[in-house]
Amino acid sequence: MKKLFAEFFGTYWLVFGGCGSALFAAGIPDLGIGFAGVALAFGLTVLTMAYAIGHISGGHFNPAVSIGLWAGGRFEAKDLISYIIAQCAGAVTAAATLFFILSGKAGFAIDNTKAGAFASNGYGAFSPDGYSMLSAFTAEFILTMFFLLIILGATDKFANGKFAGVAIGLALTLIHLISIPITNTSVNPARSTSQALFVQGEPLMQLWLFWLAPVLGALVAGFVYKNLLQNNEAE
Amino acid sequence: MKKLFAEFFGTYWLVFGGCGSALFAAGIPDLGIGFAGVALAFGLTVLTMAYAIGHISGGHFNPAVSIGLWAGGRFEAKDLISYIIAQCAGAVTAAATLFFILSGKAGFAIDNTKAGAFASNGYGAFSPDGYSMLSAFTAEFILTMFFLLIILGATDKFANGKFAGVAIGLALTLIHLISIPITNTSVNPARSTSQALFVQGEPLMQLWLFWLAPVLGALVAGFVYKNLLQNNEAE
Amino acid sequence: MKKLFAEFFGTYWLVFGGCGSALFAAGIPDLGIGFAGVALAFGLTVLTMAYAIGHISGGHFNPAVSIGLWAGGRFEAKDLISYIIAQCAGAVTAAATLFFILSGKAGFAIDNTKAGAFASNGYGAFSPDGYSMLSAFTAEFILTMFFLLIILGATDKFANGKFAGVAIGLALTLIHLISIPITNTSVNPARSTSQALFVQGEPLMQLWLFWLAPVLGALVAGFVYKNLLQNNEAE
Amino acid sequence: MKKLFAEFFGTYWLVFGGCGSALFAAGIPDLGIGFAGVALAFGLTVLTMAYAIGHISGGHFNPAVSIGLWAGGRFEAKDLISYIIAQCAGAVTAAATLFFILSGKAGFAIDNTKAGAFASNGYGAFSPDGYSMLSAFTAEFILTMFFLLIILGATDKFANGKFAGVAIGLALTLIHLISIPITNTSVNPARSTSQALFVQGEPLMQLWLFWLAPVLGALVAGFVYKNLLQNNEAE
Repeated sequence: MKKLFAEFFGTYWLVFGGCGSALFAAGIPDLGIGFAGVALAFGLTVLTMAYAIGHISGGHFNPAVSIGLWAGGRFEAKDLISYIIAQCAGAVTAAATLFFILSGKAGFAIDNTKAGAFASNGYGAFSPDGYSMLSAFTAEFILTMFFLLIILGATDKFANGKFAGVAIGLALTLIHLISIPITNTSVNPARSTSQALFVQGEPLMQLWLFWLAPVLGALVAGFVYKNLLQNNEAE
Repeated sequence: MKKLFAEFFGTYWLVFGGCGSALFAAGIPDLGIGFAGVALAFGLTVLTMAYAIGHISGGHFNPAVSIGLWAGGRFEAKDLISYIIAQCAGAVTAAATLFFILSGKAGFAIDNTKAGAFASNGYGAFSPDGYSMLSAFTAEFILTMFFLLIILGATDKFANGKFAGVAIGLALTLIHLISIPITNTSVNPARSTSQALFVQGEPLMQLWLFWLAPVLGALVAGFVYKNLLQNNEAE
Repeated sequence: MKKLFAEFFGTYWLVFGGCGSALFAAGIPDLGIGFAGVALAFGLTVLTMAYAIGHISGGHFNPAVSIGLWAGGRFEAKDLISYIIAQCAGAVTAAATLFFILSGKAGFAIDNTKAGAFASNGYGAFSPDGYSMLSAFTAEFILTMFFLLIILGATDKFANGKFAGVAIGLALTLIHLISIPITNTSVNPARSTSQALFVQGEPLMQLWLFWLAPVLGALVAGFVYKNLLQNNEAE
Repeated sequence: MKKLFAEFFGTYWLVFGGCGSALFAAGIPDLGIGFAGVALAFGLTVLTMAYAIGHISGGHFNPAVSIGLWAGGRFEAKDLISYIIAQCAGAVTAAATLFFILSGKAGFAIDNTKAGAFASNGYGAFSPDGYSMLSAFTAEFILTMFFLLIILGATDKFANGKFAGVAIGLALTLIHLISIPITNTSVNPARSTSQALFVQGEPLMQLWLFWLAPVLGALVAGFVYKNLLQNNEAE
């Protein structure tokens, strides 16, 4: 049960901090933090929580991560569903908190005809810089695959494991530095779901891609890591 | 006594570095460091001092942190008052130094009718981006609560404790990336007090919120960590 | 064989993440990540992969690094060719992926008369800020030399080796902070080759410099480290 | 002798990377790295070299650091002069390299009537944002004092010493985030000297302050650390 609380709070923090920095601070003229600040914020949510509660739940905060760790032989199938539910619950609760805080600013409204509304993910007309569905799918697939390769590698028993939280957190920063213009960056179905539920409209219609592409990328990463990279022998 | 000197110097550095970067460098056209630079500066004050003097005093530099650690069972009640006094003294001395340096620039004056004057915290008309009192309270409460969850978790005996200074410092960076537009970011009553004393006027009237919300958030974090997350058994 | 897969994936990630962040996100008005964001992205590709697969292949991801490690007595000559081929294959595959994703955006085309097209390296008229061939050569030579000094030093048996991934990754960030305006920053012949192949024209004609200068800098670093810096005695 | 080579190369890298990023990349419209990028670059020069050659020479790269470590009882007086000479030689050689590379760009010239020319330090009319001599002196004194407190603390035998390179490097980043507008940030007499020699004119006349204030700050830090903070007993 402590594990599920840890996943709830960790995913809450990921959405509150990552999407929150985008919603509150990214676009303020002259002083705002821009895409680079949002990228840093997403990464730091994971870095900070990895060291805070990684020792409790493993620190996934993302259904694709749980699935990829299962595919890589590091996580048990019986815990998958409860982890994913805790992650989605944390993400949706965070999105509700963001909505509440934003509603305390005069003139706040979500315009779901605009790309990236309420920090939602999207493709085509809902891609921040106008990338097609195929480009969006490719980017989410590749980025999640490499995210999982880094997670599987950095937590390998032969790796320098104490730095895994730094490597994994900053990998998420890197992923956002690359791909905010393409899809507003997901690689995390729980994060995408929580925003889409509040935005509704077309971004909710496009949510399937932000489950399918990350989950496929994670599965491929588990297969690639086990078969092409992992040292399977004892030293 | 060494502990109190350490808290004095550490909190001095937090205010001098964090508020100083905002006052000297944030708003310079084209080349300034913006909110992201200020966020980085606040976090680095804590990261650097955590490794420099964390081994002396524990490295709190913030009354809400001392109170939260007490609520989490990690700090003794008898030391609370002296720590908080040392923290406030360091913060006020730093603010005085900032005032002195700024007065050596032609045209320097504090305009206490403006949000964020002399790096002060505020809500409503004194929120940098116009957030209500309720939104400001919610943000300060939640952010301090998570700040303490990270501190309690990263310094847990089962955690990877050598990285606590990195996780805690960068958590403060993250908190500023999220919330400078909302309240100019406090989560630290000593930091808020030092600026408000020099600004006077409405920001001083609003100071209560920047004690109440962070302290409540810290108390809740202590309770949540002990009861929902912490592993209380021996391994 | 696992080593070559690791070098392939690592160099893929370096080009996909570093050049990708430049191509997708650097120049977006107001919110883009700029040169500093690209510098951070390049460094994080190496930092993340160093912790993920450094324990498999050593984590070179760069022909100049493999050559410099050989010159410094840390890598065997017999593995040089296969490493360099794996690195170039990973880089070219990544460039192909970037090309595919970019082609999903309306109006995409590579204009090979412009400096930095498709994140290519160049000098003279193809230097982003108009630096001569001699300045470009000097910068690439010195920066690669120091990159290798840092790699050789941080992985020395007397060094604090667990931090090598942080130091080496952030060294690449620093190198980009300095020199994007000069050559669009290479210090990595595989990265330069992959972009030049897609750009063709003058940038491909200039590719020789981005092999010669980094390789010479790496060889000098190996000599300098062994003879002037390294402690050759047992403790 | 290896120690002096290490200090030479380390200080070369500090000036080449820190001042170089300012000269090449800081002010490029829209994409430039700004003060925050320069701050990051200075810090990363020290972080990278601390892990690369800190085990050889201790990694000072700054006369004020050597003097402060002597004042704190961590460095022998007999090595002071040779370290300072190696540091200044490295800094001047780096400035010469920067000058050479810059001369390969059409229209390059140093205008020594402008604040910050060739990355020089200054006060009054030569302060980037117009701060008086007294403000400049105060800032350099306080920042160097805290820089040394962090160095002395992070390398204390009771501290978490493996992170000292991170804490000290990022302290230099923080110091630049705060004070580039005040003096263009020195806290390092070797760095100031190397630029002033190439700029001549008024910046060379003002060089005394960038020896006096940092050295005084370093001496006070040594005294403060030994007497108010350091744990002098065995555990």
